[in-house]
Amino acid sequence: MDIDAIKAKNPEHWMKAAAIRALTLDAVAAAKSGHSGMPMGMADVATVLFGNHLKFDAANPTWPDRDRFILSAGHGSMLIYSLLYLVGDAEITLEEVKNFRQLGARTAGHPENTHATAIETTTGPLGQGISNSVGFAMAEEIQRARFGAKIVDHYTYVMAGDGCLMEGVSHEAIGIAGRHKLSKLIVFWDNNDITIDGKVSLSDRSDQVGRFKAAGWDVQEIDGHDAAAIDAAITAAKKTDTPSMIACKTHIALGHAAQDTSKGHGALTDAAQMAAAKAVYGWTTGPFEVPADVKAQWEAIGARGADTRRAWEERFEAQSQTKQVEFNRQLAGEAPKKLSATIKALKKQISEAAPSVATRKSSEMVLEVVNPLMPETVGGSADLTGSNNTLTKDMGVFDVENRGGRYVYYGIREHGMAAAMNGMALHGGVRPYGGTFMCFTDYARPAMRLAALMQVPTVFVMTHDSIGLGEDGPTHQPVEHLAISRATPNTYVFRPADTVETAEAWEIALTTTTTPSVLALSRQNLPTVRTTHKNTNMVAQGAYVLAEAEGKRQAILMATGSEVSIALAARDILQAEGIGTRVVSMPCWELFEAQDEAVRKRVLPAGPVRVAIEAGVQFGWDKWLSGERGKANKSAFVGMQGFGASAPAEELYEHFGITAEAAAQKVRDLIAGK
Amino acid sequence: MDIDAIKAKNPEHWMKAAAIRALTLDAVAAAKSGHSGMPMGMADVATVLFGNHLKFDAANPTWPDRDRFILSAGHGSMLIYSLLYLVGDAEITLEEVKNFRQLGARTAGHPENTHATAIETTTGPLGQGISNSVGFAMAEEIQRARFGAKIVDHYTYVMAGDGCLMEGVSHEAIGIAGRHKLSKLIVFWDNNDITIDGKVSLSDRSDQVGRFKAAGWDVQEIDGHDAAAIDAAITAAKKTDTPSMIACKTHIALGHAAQDTSKGHGALTDAAQMAAAKAVYGWTTGPFEVPADVKAQWEAIGARGADTRRAWEERFEAQSQTKQVEFNRQLAGEAPKKLSATIKALKKQISEAAPSVATRKSSEMVLEVVNPLMPETVGGSADLTGSNNTLTKDMGVFDVENRGGRYVYYGIREHGMAAAMNGMALHGGVRPYGGTFMCFTDYARPAMRLAALMQVPTVFVMTHDSIGLGEDGPTHQPVEHLAISRATPNTYVFRPADTVETAEAWEIALTTTTTPSVLALSRQNLPTVRTTHKNTNMVAQGAYVLAEAEGKRQAILMATGSEVSIALAARDILQAEGIGTRVVSMPCWELFEAQDEAVRKRVLPAGPVRVAIEAGVQFGWDKWLSGERGKANKSAFVGMQGFGASAPAEELYEHFGITAEAAAQKVRDLIAGK
Repeated sequence: MDIDAIKAKNPEHWMKAAAIRALTLDAVAAAKSGHSGMPMGMADVATVLFGNHLKFDAANPTWPDRDRFILSAGHGSMLIYSLLYLVGDAEITLEEVKNFRQLGARTAGHPENTHATAIETTTGPLGQGISNSVGFAMAEEIQRARFGAKIVDHYTYVMAGDGCLMEGVSHEAIGIAGRHKLSKLIVFWDNNDITIDGKVSLSDRSDQVGRFKAAGWDVQEIDGHDAAAIDAAITAAKKTDTPSMIACKTHIALGHAAQDTSKGHGALTDAAQMAAAKAVYGWTTGPFEVPADVKAQWEAIGARGADTRRAWEERFEAQSQTKQVEFNRQLAGEAPKKLSATIKALKKQISEAAPSVATRKSSEMVLEVVNPLMPETVGGSADLTGSNNTLTKDMGVFDVENRGGRYVYYGIREHGMAAAMNGMALHGGVRPYGGTFMCFTDYARPAMRLAALMQVPTVFVMTHDSIGLGEDGPTHQPVEHLAISRATPNTYVFRPADTVETAEAWEIALTTTTTPSVLALSRQNLPTVRTTHKNTNMVAQGAYVLAEAEGKRQAILMATGSEVSIALAARDILQAEGIGTRVVSMPCWELFEAQDEAVRKRVLPAGPVRVAIEAGVQFGWDKWLSGERGKANKSAFVGMQGFGASAPAEELYEHFGITAEAAAQKVRDLIAGK
Repeated sequence: MDIDAIKAKNPEHWMKAAAIRALTLDAVAAAKSGHSGMPMGMADVATVLFGNHLKFDAANPTWPDRDRFILSAGHGSMLIYSLLYLVGDAEITLEEVKNFRQLGARTAGHPENTHATAIETTTGPLGQGISNSVGFAMAEEIQRARFGAKIVDHYTYVMAGDGCLMEGVSHEAIGIAGRHKLSKLIVFWDNNDITIDGKVSLSDRSDQVGRFKAAGWDVQEIDGHDAAAIDAAITAAKKTDTPSMIACKTHIALGHAAQDTSKGHGALTDAAQMAAAKAVYGWTTGPFEVPADVKAQWEAIGARGADTRRAWEERFEAQSQTKQVEFNRQLAGEAPKKLSATIKALKKQISEAAPSVATRKSSEMVLEVVNPLMPETVGGSADLTGSNNTLTKDMGVFDVENRGGRYVYYGIREHGMAAAMNGMALHGGVRPYGGTFMCFTDYARPAMRLAALMQVPTVFVMTHDSIGLGEDGPTHQPVEHLAISRATPNTYVFRPADTVETAEAWEIALTTTTTPSVLALSRQNLPTVRTTHKNTNMVAQGAYVLAEAEGKRQAILMATGSEVSIALAARDILQAEGIGTRVVSMPCWELFEAQDEAVRKRVLPAGPVRVAIEAGVQFGWDKWLSGERGKANKSAFVGMQGFGASAPAEELYEHFGITAEAAAQKVRDLIAGK
């Protein structure tokens, strides 16, 4: 391609884009690792987007009505770091750019939202950014419906590569976006024909344009190095009433010897080739040096939105005090003051009435009182609304004609739902929760991990949490999924035993701001075990003494969720035999681990034999059995040894030996030293 | 719709299809659970497919050249159970149909391949069957290229619903199938406009026809209740040179009061409504009773393929003895006799040369000697070929023009790859392995679980298995993924320490027939730790003494993979201080767990303090620390406490304190009783 001709056509644009390319080359060379080609290929699109369209004020990266920029192709992180440094972001300084990929730098290998305010989401695992963006765009619609277009009116822009578009989650995401006509979502496809293994055609020959059209998107195809074409396409995309995809034909590693090759995808560090590329660009300054005039032009772009921001602030301050306070509360993720009292009142009522209900139904009972109080909640389900019990009467259904609806029918798209929820949480102003079967944690898993890494309080409502779901069989019966979620850092895994614990779990899930929650809920009815009302949120301690031993304490039974009532029944058997037995409910291991040793010791003292009961695999339980003052030869587990089976739930509990009598027998054996 | 008119048009067809509908209603009613609507909606398509096209012989469900029938919409399991009973399958008897969804029955809630020979794959988690089918079709192409069309020449038929098509994995699957022009793959879309939450349009308005066309498929649209149209569409689909999708407009729960509603998706058990539906069908026999003439027609269908099968057997027996033996060996999943000697020779050579290489490279070294020996291996990678080291020189690349190629460029489709590999393994005759980064176990997870449940020996080559991958940062650094895989039943998780252990792990992975394997391999170079050659496969023991304590045994260091050499270095430090230290390498927990207690006790005796070293989370390790004759206050863990970070690998190991000195200090502290 004729770079000189492009340069000549628009020299100012060219040098601004060249700044991105040069900084990328320098940073990758200094780090001796990274991905050079993507930022070099998409520099023109980024320059036009930031220069002419993106509504932002570099000095105020938290301005709520800013447009969102999402780099779904996260390996091209030097694109976003270059942009942020160039526009004058306070956090991504030149020093940070020089420390690309070094310990403690904000400029991690892939963009991390916790590292800099202006990084909207963490990307790198492909397909996540584009799927988050659907949640960003939905949150914008919902907020706009609630607060009006004077306060909320912004676009979500995404850059995605072939990797993002091949990932299955992209299919789910674009399906949701198309269905809901998320017209303020604009995706740039970096159509460079290259993946790591070689030409895209090695592995994919699908028609992306046709595919997006089939999903109800508007599509334009442009030369991704033609500034005027890019500008016109963005202008047109902003006006459509559907989401837009702009297919940008680009050259990966433009101007470098590795241009248009898979080598260009990775780290281009050869000094001579770098010099040659810079010569092609007309870039004459030294490493990490941006000519003052170019930097000034970029800083002007960074300041371009300041007036718009100030005008927004004036409009915001003209709103009623109530509206301002509410907007800010929702944005900060602060629960309303009434929440605590509401949860306490529900707990009291339940402890007194002591109903026998499935905890998925308990969850609905909690949501029925919480949702009217918290207009920021946005619920949904991956096509299991009636099973997950996630829809409450007051919510309204989110739809093209009802943007204020707070319930999303996500369809059979667990992964897309989870990623969209993360996007909503990152956008702010809404608090997402969504349901599927616990076993399908598997499908949502990549997004659930990112929720933990990104420190967002997404709530995953996972019902049918064991063999207790019965006849649907082992394909639908989680056995290892509690372990999977518990093994994940920064994740609260709640498995409440009854409605009271469910209410307490929801209270924590709805007040935390930096940790996602997994609510593992039963399909089958469970008795109320917390029949004495306590104001204290006991789930917040993670584990606690639910029933104390009478007489000498010889045994401790530990259980979660649907097995807590089995533990209580086992205790009855043992106490009748004169074996003093304590029952410890352990609804949230992570919160228990966070307690002082003194608290943990009070709950799990040394001495008594220990039996844990959980309708899942033992994996992870040894920590509480032989660890934590326990002893290997004085502890045992009652639970699953492998996959489940298809049969009525009660029969399965018998079949797999998860019964009060089996637990009692383990205790007898341990006491007898067998 | 006018059912009488349809009936009148083709009464014999109608009654055959009605048999499926009636059996479905009866079985679901008896079980009081299940999914009636799908089998009732797709009964016509199934009847035409089995009646006129599907090449099978009910008496010989293992006939290798049979067409494959895959019910991707697995909740409609009564469709397959009805069909198998009707055609005279020996395993799915009437008694089994009556025991639908009961404990011990072959007729589980969702079809399970381990429950009946004629069930080709386990379905239920949506999108899996259609994705498996891609692997079935690839295996057929590869086998055909190898053995000729006289021996291998069959179709793969799939029934998929809206759920399957909304799931992201379907996008990956149809992309692979389209790219590779898998023309013998034919998918029926049960286009009934209904999901559990309501009309499909609630959550999806995409154009499935346009979407499949965009992926390079041939598409036909038909009335799914018109037998002639179904027949003509299948005939046409068999002739295309691309995969085919037949969009079948159907009515869920046809003829029942719940027809065309989401209620019709579930269990229809109302007696009066059932009676009414049967009256509409003209079905007058009692529950589970099929009129003799209808049963005879179905049994004739079951026997229809017998001649074709006999002709195939004659052709097969006309092949050379060598070819027959080799075909049967590959189909049985038996490793060639030479494998063991080849692995031993490699081990010996490596123990002597003691190279320092990354275990991902070790894996390649193993594959270089194994692949020429095992023509049944089919390798691949989700666009990380050069990083996963999965391609060896002799394989050839699978492509439209090279069906004998044994390497698949799957593209950025970890989930689709995993599901396709499962399909290959289920088809038989090929042994699939495929690579991605260990962290992206997350993406492949639903299919990895099914590999375990289905008992197929798929091999997942997961490289870059810790913070040792360095600069790519926490989005790419697995910390909980070893725990995730280990928590999954029936899965071998291998984390070899060097090339010798890698060879031993591969030997097990390539000889097992009922367990999938996860190979967790390092990005970074590791020294050879097995420098004394042993013929015995030590990895098969799961854990073993790599270095014995000199003097009094005061400490045991346990480690896996890249941390084994750190354990050895820690031992050097401790031995120099006079602290006798044993190092135990634990490459496969599952195989160690399977050992007799006597073996385990020899490796992990009571007494010495224990420190485990692994660059992952502690979750699961307590089993070996405080469990298994250990003590909580005499054991400690050196590893990760949370997510990783972006920096060079060596710095990360220092930063997170995973060092020989840190391990040695833990030992000193434990011995001192700190």
